[in-house]
Amino acid sequence: MHTDNPTAAILVIGDEILSGRTRDSNAHHLAQVLSATGFDLREIRVVADDQEQIVAAVRALDDSLGGAWNLLFTSGGIGPTHDDITADAVAAAHDTTAQIHPQARAALQARCDRMGTELTPNRLRMARVPVGATLIENPVSAAPGFSIGNTHVMAGVPEVFRGMVDWLIPRLAAGRPVRSQTVEVRRGESDVAGDLRAVAALFPDLSLGSYPYHDERGWGTNLVVRGLDEARIEQAMDQLKRRLEL
Amino acid sequence: MHTDNPTAAILVIGDEILSGRTRDSNAHHLAQVLSATGFDLREIRVVADDQEQIVAAVRALDDSLGGAWNLLFTSGGIGPTHDDITADAVAAAHDTTAQIHPQARAALQARCDRMGTELTPNRLRMARVPVGATLIENPVSAAPGFSIGNTHVMAGVPEVFRGMVDWLIPRLAAGRPVRSQTVEVRRGESDVAGDLRAVAALFPDLSLGSYPYHDERGWGTNLVVRGLDEARIEQAMDQLKRRLEL
Repeated sequence: MHTDNPTAAILVIGDEILSGRTRDSNAHHLAQVLSATGFDLREIRVVADDQEQIVAAVRALDDSLGGAWNLLFTSGGIGPTHDDITADAVAAAHDTTAQIHPQARAALQARCDRMGTELTPNRLRMARVPVGATLIENPVSAAPGFSIGNTHVMAGVPEVFRGMVDWLIPRLAAGRPVRSQTVEVRRGESDVAGDLRAVAALFPDLSLGSYPYHDERGWGTNLVVRGLDEARIEQAMDQLKRRLEL
Repeated sequence: MHTDNPTAAILVIGDEILSGRTRDSNAHHLAQVLSATGFDLREIRVVADDQEQIVAAVRALDDSLGGAWNLLFTSGGIGPTHDDITADAVAAAHDTTAQIHPQARAALQARCDRMGTELTPNRLRMARVPVGATLIENPVSAAPGFSIGNTHVMAGVPEVFRGMVDWLIPRLAAGRPVRSQTVEVRRGESDVAGDLRAVAALFPDLSLGSYPYHDERGWGTNLVVRGLDEARIEQAMDQLKRRLEL
């Protein structure tokens, strides 16, 4: 399926995903939001809290740096601890450095005042963003994300990540949302492959996928038709159902 | 943290992950297995069912092709349908082509005989592997995975993927398992960052991570010490707890 939608990548930064300690939920959440709002997610990467790996990935994925995709969203590594190196690494990828952003500092100060706590050097670390970056609002806990070039940097804590996504996505120029319809058959994939291929050939503007599963009753397959045009999806689904006698 | 363990990457192949339809579970499962058995997972990528993207990723990740890591595990795209192109793409990455493997054909034929079904051309597609590949056994449904160079290709259906992982991993030369201990504090990350950094500096052979979360009671943080040596982990955890008065 070809769309003219802006292309996108997600870069998840965090040892805890690679060690198996944490199962990522941010990439999955953002993938759903991007489909529904008209962006074409083409790649996800997960890398360690490692400067060299982050810099290489940002450059490979952000087209403003010669990378592959129109937009890059990152998750993780913007907290106050020694292993939170995303701001410095993203700055380096964009050939600049990180420094305290006055607006971020003010947001953190206001929150500290409200909570009756002090803006310690550790907390202040979270106001550091690359020179030239603009801020992404954090509706949960003040410490902001930021955008530089086509890279949009967000927090790893799922609740904060989602808040930043909600704030950011409506501010980006989207394409057309992708629609889909699904039909489930209690047959293995091999038994539907021929009909699926035949219908796919008739609808090159759509994407036809088959997702087999296995449960206590044996094999089943979800057949999914995706595309931009609801009427075309309907036509393809009708043909598929007729061929499969559903 | 530095280990001499073999390094590894996971490549997940599938439009359904990028569209947000499916939340990947295979990479998370394999990440846990790799940590526990002595492999150092350094990168995860998710790409579309797209020949060019798969070829580029395999070449970037498998060190037998000049890529970055010692071992590459893939998930998805080896079924019978038109969008199952992993065998051909991995073959192309390794400068060869896919063809019917006699042993894979025999396994599929035996299963068809048992089930009283026919080995149709669609089913037979699943016996195609790159020339020179060896097979990975499929304990669920006969259609095998395969290994070529340092690339190990497995199915996307979670039950089948897990069966293949169980078969494959004990056959690979592992390093030392990574151990970890966790302590939970009901404080924000900023309040523990200083002590965490101090202890991390004393134990360069270990990895100290902090994973904040937010729930109805406010902020909390899990502090995780990881390493190869249980006694060192114990020492670092003791110092951390003393400093944090836990």
